[in-house]
Amino acid sequence: MDKTIIVEKKEYSLKKPILITGLPGIGLVGQVAARYLIKKMKGVKVAEIYSPHFPHQVLMGKKGLLRMLKNSIYKVPTPKRDLLVIVGDVQAITSVGQYEVADAILEYVYEKGVRRVITIGGYSTGKMEKERKVFGSANNKRVMEEFKKKGIVFGETKGAIIGVAGLLPGLARLRKMDGVCIMGETHGNYVDSTSAKNVLEKLSEILEFKIDIGDLEKEAKTREKVIRKIEGEIEQQMTGSPKDITYIR
Amino acid sequence: MDKTIIVEKKEYSLKKPILITGLPGIGLVGQVAARYLIKKMKGVKVAEIYSPHFPHQVLMGKKGLLRMLKNSIYKVPTPKRDLLVIVGDVQAITSVGQYEVADAILEYVYEKGVRRVITIGGYSTGKMEKERKVFGSANNKRVMEEFKKKGIVFGETKGAIIGVAGLLPGLARLRKMDGVCIMGETHGNYVDSTSAKNVLEKLSEILEFKIDIGDLEKEAKTREKVIRKIEGEIEQQMTGSPKDITYIR
Amino acid sequence: MDKTIIVEKKEYSLKKPILITGLPGIGLVGQVAARYLIKKMKGVKVAEIYSPHFPHQVLMGKKGLLRMLKNSIYKVPTPKRDLLVIVGDVQAITSVGQYEVADAILEYVYEKGVRRVITIGGYSTGKMEKERKVFGSANNKRVMEEFKKKGIVFGETKGAIIGVAGLLPGLARLRKMDGVCIMGETHGNYVDSTSAKNVLEKLSEILEFKIDIGDLEKEAKTREKVIRKIEGEIEQQMTGSPKDITYIR
Amino acid sequence: MDKTIIVEKKEYSLKKPILITGLPGIGLVGQVAARYLIKKMKGVKVAEIYSPHFPHQVLMGKKGLLRMLKNSIYKVPTPKRDLLVIVGDVQAITSVGQYEVADAILEYVYEKGVRRVITIGGYSTGKMEKERKVFGSANNKRVMEEFKKKGIVFGETKGAIIGVAGLLPGLARLRKMDGVCIMGETHGNYVDSTSAKNVLEKLSEILEFKIDIGDLEKEAKTREKVIRKIEGEIEQQMTGSPKDITYIR
Repeated sequence: MDKTIIVEKKEYSLKKPILITGLPGIGLVGQVAARYLIKKMKGVKVAEIYSPHFPHQVLMGKKGLLRMLKNSIYKVPTPKRDLLVIVGDVQAITSVGQYEVADAILEYVYEKGVRRVITIGGYSTGKMEKERKVFGSANNKRVMEEFKKKGIVFGETKGAIIGVAGLLPGLARLRKMDGVCIMGETHGNYVDSTSAKNVLEKLSEILEFKIDIGDLEKEAKTREKVIRKIEGEIEQQMTGSPKDITYIR
Repeated sequence: MDKTIIVEKKEYSLKKPILITGLPGIGLVGQVAARYLIKKMKGVKVAEIYSPHFPHQVLMGKKGLLRMLKNSIYKVPTPKRDLLVIVGDVQAITSVGQYEVADAILEYVYEKGVRRVITIGGYSTGKMEKERKVFGSANNKRVMEEFKKKGIVFGETKGAIIGVAGLLPGLARLRKMDGVCIMGETHGNYVDSTSAKNVLEKLSEILEFKIDIGDLEKEAKTREKVIRKIEGEIEQQMTGSPKDITYIR
Repeated sequence: MDKTIIVEKKEYSLKKPILITGLPGIGLVGQVAARYLIKKMKGVKVAEIYSPHFPHQVLMGKKGLLRMLKNSIYKVPTPKRDLLVIVGDVQAITSVGQYEVADAILEYVYEKGVRRVITIGGYSTGKMEKERKVFGSANNKRVMEEFKKKGIVFGETKGAIIGVAGLLPGLARLRKMDGVCIMGETHGNYVDSTSAKNVLEKLSEILEFKIDIGDLEKEAKTREKVIRKIEGEIEQQMTGSPKDITYIR
Repeated sequence: MDKTIIVEKKEYSLKKPILITGLPGIGLVGQVAARYLIKKMKGVKVAEIYSPHFPHQVLMGKKGLLRMLKNSIYKVPTPKRDLLVIVGDVQAITSVGQYEVADAILEYVYEKGVRRVITIGGYSTGKMEKERKVFGSANNKRVMEEFKKKGIVFGETKGAIIGVAGLLPGLARLRKMDGVCIMGETHGNYVDSTSAKNVLEKLSEILEFKIDIGDLEKEAKTREKVIRKIEGEIEQQMTGSPKDITYIR
């Protein structure tokens, strides 16, 4: 195996498909959102992605089975269109590898009829804002205007988007495909289910499908409490009077 | 040489062959077991594996000869089947290299009729258990059940298997080949001949051949004493009363 | 995408073309000079260079659009000839990548009729000379003599030229193309618009075109003041009498 | 340029050719010996080796010319046979690169009729022996016995030979070519012309040609004095009585 390969698990057809990706990244926003989307919308796995650019290990499961590190592609049906949703264990570990995997994905979904790519990521602010925005950055103006109307906030982010979440919409443009990266505002140090929920709500609005967000909301509340507690303790330590501090390292 | 190559040393045929690998890894469990297997069962070298992904050095032998770093494939005859056993100096040094070498091996043995791959490794626990288990992780349920019946312990390991020992059964699945990684429980900091012996005993049971384990047992006892002595000293140092300690760093 | 690709943005023809490059490097001399050249001479973008050897990220712009990291090729018309000017965000991040990108550029421009390559860089001296020279290093004597007559200083630099600025003239020789690296003398720690101006003036002389250098001169003066102020402070700190120093790290 | 290339500078024929390499390595023994051999025996450059696995830089010469990093192949005539001698600025910077360059060299010289490869290196002992041996390690017994008769010392070295000096004889064996690495005993921290001289004397004996070793001998004596002085000072510092030491770091 000297190239990234995509192995189809079943034959399938698609209705006006759009690609969505939620791979490991900042605050795991994309991963949490995409996995929830697949679960609640009864996604069916249609293909698996293996790459020599992934780490050279296999994972051992609890039941005694091992498996390759991989990304998986699910078909998720919605009233207006089918979604192809990519989730996975890892991203490629080198720059050359990232380009190869992203290109292999685009090649595959293009042939499946996909002409629009939405990647989900987190946008790290280092703060725990109560209201967290959903930012966007697009590979052309037309699609940006379309997403802006649905409340995605454009032009407030800066810097670079690293990895698949950025390369996919970037490379998509070379194939004249629309591409948008949707980023949930997040602290960056924590798994942020609240941000994932925000992204998913926006996504369902944009793509006109309904999704029961209840379980994610519950999980988000629990996580939120824990994070706020940790953040509170950190702040206290940073601003606390000297006599309270016995040992700092 | 820009790809891994497998050089045949002689023509040979195989009876219902199974692939076994014991390359350098945790506790050298796999390496010790596989080398002993080859030696006691009178294995014959049939092929050598060279790769640009191995370190760029040659080894100087005591008698004035130099040789490439390599992996070697031995044919080891047993009553029920022939084994192809791979041992070697090194594993590939990059992730891409590991995938390439593992794939080249699978390609080669598949054409030789191999449909089942057993890799031997160590499973590090950081402890010197008196009774050390032989764990397994398989690439499908059927082969797992089969090995479980022979006393291999499944479902008690977690995490990842790094390198060839994991990639081979992982990649084997993509070719619909059975794959199991058998791991001897081991401390992890020492060469563990006891664990290698345990693995080899199980392996001979599973594959229905007899092997004189005597020499390995002897070696294991010697090593065991040395290791227990070192461990004892470490423990004493860690728990000894302050006055016993003259210098700790 | 497993190779560097050059995407043409429009059909175009060229009159006796010469390649000029100004990619990120020492003092940003090349980048500042080349960008100014394109702007003032009304260059038109004709092609874009993408490479898996660039970092795996996309840049987010202020207006909500994202784009790939890239190098761009502009056609810049001058009275005697057309220039192909390459500017860009980055250089390749590995040695193999650098060779590939440089070779892809040469291949492309050779087919466009280019037989002479001029790369612009900075030559770091660690000093802020009032009068800064324009150095050169050439891939053959004939072109060196030609540039020497125009006041480019040869034979006063030593060491290596790293990256595209060196590889292009170096590799050009293998295709029997003339190649010169023109280096503006510079401190090395600062963006040096003065040095860029010096280079550009020499370049316009050599290539016989006129360019309004006014804006660059203005920018250079502003930068110069700031740099001299910083350098002055550093020097004062280094030579100040002990009593003046409260804390040095 | 995505592969190592060998560019012929002229047409040439060879009489019973043998390959000799002296690339940068321990004590520069190989490089000093090979360069001296080329100079004294009036070698003629016949080919140049370029590789994307070399560092991505060009060298600036004193006279204003730049050139690629490269290895060069010289034809060196001797009474009994022609030698192809490889010297150069660098070796490849990755393992994969080292294998590729070594293989490209073998491929090239094999087609030129070369069936025997002698690489020259240094063998580091960390000591400045007065009499320094010339060690050898060979890729087969026959050639080892042949060289042993000429006074090359086999079987007293251990460990690995890193880089081209090892890979060439190692890979040569896969092509059924004889290969020997000749190593001058050396301290390892200094350029060792004495060791280079020793190697060259042995080489001329083995290959039955005469070479005026005078200039190298002179250079060796000068270097030797300097090195012994440095070593003497180091030793004094290490063993000097405490009161002599004002500051040790």
